[in-house]
Order: sequence, then structure tokens, then C-alpha cells
Amino acid sequence: MADSNALQGLIQALRRLPGVGVKSASRMAFHLLQHDRDGARALAAALAQASATVKHCERCHTFTEAPVCSTCLDPRRDGTRLCVVETPADQSAVERTGAYRGLYFVLMGKISPLDGIGPHDIGLKHLFERASDGVVAEVILATNFTAEGEATAHIISEGLRERGLQITRLARGVPAGSELEYVDLGTIAHALVDRR
Amino acid sequence: MADSNALQGLIQALRRLPGVGVKSASRMAFHLLQHDRDGARALAAALAQASATVKHCERCHTFTEAPVCSTCLDPRRDGTRLCVVETPADQSAVERTGAYRGLYFVLMGKISPLDGIGPHDIGLKHLFERASDGVVAEVILATNFTAEGEATAHIISEGLRERGLQITRLARGVPAGSELEYVDLGTIAHALVDRR
Repeated sequence: MADSNALQGLIQALRRLPGVGVKSASRMAFHLLQHDRDGARALAAALAQASATVKHCERCHTFTEAPVCSTCLDPRRDGTRLCVVETPADQSAVERTGAYRGLYFVLMGKISPLDGIGPHDIGLKHLFERASDGVVAEVILATNFTAEGEATAHIISEGLRERGLQITRLARGVPAGSELEYVDLGTIAHALVDRR
Repeated sequence: MADSNALQGLIQALRRLPGVGVKSASRMAFHLLQHDRDGARALAAALAQASATVKHCERCHTFTEAPVCSTCLDPRRDGTRLCVVETPADQSAVERTGAYRGLYFVLMGKISPLDGIGPHDIGLKHLFERASDGVVAEVILATNFTAEGEATAHIISEGLRERGLQITRLARGVPAGSELEYVDLGTIAHALVDRR
């Protein structure tokens, strides 16, 4: 596409974004250079800024620019409950429900043997220490209901079992607003077992 | 997603990329910060570099860092033929066929009345000057076969009609490798009319 090394370099760099192939990268580069150079400069600045300043919260591991994030520092939070999620996006989803006022631990990943990611890679040791602070009484496992998320939840509950903590898992069941006819059978079977 | 202004700024900046919504932008930001900070820095540098150095070729309008692109400067090219395309990506597609050795004019857009883009916005005046250089004998209209591309081709052919140039359009027909059953009827109708 044209004879510009800077343009080729930009297309290659855009391909490092997840889910962006060569066609998408070309379209993005074309759009930015033809219609939105301000956007290109703003994105360059935001990338440099975030790369330099965003760290992990020392207590819950989520992204923050401070040593400890504002959620962990909030005195109105219930420190006896610790909700374990895979990513900041999952944390945000739990947060948006408004139904949880405890603290979080963000794994920043999940155990995935197929990708060679084991318990050590996602820092479970740090979680076990965090859960043993003497305040936490209940650990709520809110990893995803995928094979990897379930395996991660299983390994965490194994690791925490002997510490006298209550270990719970998000309820499985039929999603709100759904029709039974279109819900997969595994979900219906779980909802039957956990009926109340 | 976490409490970081730099992260929020990065997500907002990523949303300026075409086809990227808030979920994709969050996933991209998360991936770069968690797994590929080198990639984030490389992308920041590539964006700044391309924004600063990539210009338009004075002759064909494609992206280049030089005043005139290498294609326009290539003495082995046939200067009597000028192929008009919408974007550098389209130019690249024609180039990859290996079937064309003439020069190009890249519109960097198309006429789109619905988006308020008229003949002036895509620099047709510059194309008419370029085509009137006394060397160009044939203008090949290779705009896309969409409503906007057809309208653009029509307006260009109207504008060039009185200049004694041969105006041609890419042939319409059944794509190589396709089965008639799955080809739309308009395409088959055109292929029947243009049969040879």
C-alpha cells in the first residue's frame, strides 16, 4: 500500500492489537492518516502515557496509577468479602450490578494449560496471602464459566480450603430474560440442581 | 475498568480507530498493558512517525514520504495510461495482479452525497489537471462497483469527456472461481450483456 516506510511500520504496529489482521490494520492506518491525524496523535500520546504510568494495585492487582487502587482504599467497602475475577473488565461488570460492596482480587488472567499458563503465572500465591489477612471471611469465586475459568476456580478453592475461609461461587442458572427453549441443556440441568 | 485515568484515556483514544467500540477498545488496552507494553510503545512511536512524515504524492495523491511517490517516478511505467482508484488499498490490489504497468491516480475517497462528500471534496480538479498533461491517453476507472464508486466513475467520465481521452471502466462480470448459482442476478445480467 503506497511506498511509505512509516505507513508500513504503522500497519505492522497496529497488527499487534488483538483481533486486528492486515486488512483491518490497513483500514485503520488509512483512516487515521486521511481523516483523523489528531486522533493518531492522541492515540500515540495515550499509549505512551498509559505504558509509563499504569501499574498494578498492590492489594488487588487491578490496573491503577497509585500504589493501591481507590476501591481497596475505600473505607465503606466490606473487607470481609473478597470477590475473585479474571480481568478488570469482569470486575467492572460485577461493580455495575451495584449488588456487591466487598473488595476484589483481579487475577489478570486465568489458568490455561493449553497455553502453558499455570497457577504460578497468574500469581495465585499473592491471592492466597491476600485472603489470609485475617479480615477476609468469604472468598467469592467469580471467574468465568468457561473451561479455563472453572479450572481456575477449582484450583483456587483447593488452595484456600485449609484456611478456614468460606468459599463460594457465583450461581449458575438461566439468564434473566431468556426463554428455556433457547438455553443450552447444561445450563438448564444446573438450574434444576440448584433450584430454590 | 479499574481506577486509572491513563487507562480510560487509552480506551477513549482507541475508540477513534474505525470499527472499534468500547468493548474492543477495553480488550485492546487490557492486552497491551498486561501482555505487550513493548507493542504499546512501538505503536505510539509508529503513530507519531506516520502522522509527522506521511504526505500525499504530488502527482497521484497516494501516501508517500517523498514529494512524488516511487511509482510515479518509475521510468518503466507506461505514462499513457492512468488508472483511477479510490484508496491506496485498491491501488495495491490492482498492483498485485501484475497485469497493469501504467500510472495511478488515487482519489483518497469517493463521492458520497449521503455523507456530504461531493466532487470538490475528493479533489477531482486535480485529477482533471493530471489527466490533461498531454501524455495520458487512456483513463481507466477502477473505482469500486458500489453505488458511491459508480457515481464517482460517472462524474469523472463526464468531466473528462471533452478532453479527447479514452475513458474505460473495469469489466463487470462473474468472479473467477464462483458458481453461477451463488452469484447475484445483477452480476449475471451484466456478464450476459458484456459477453464475448
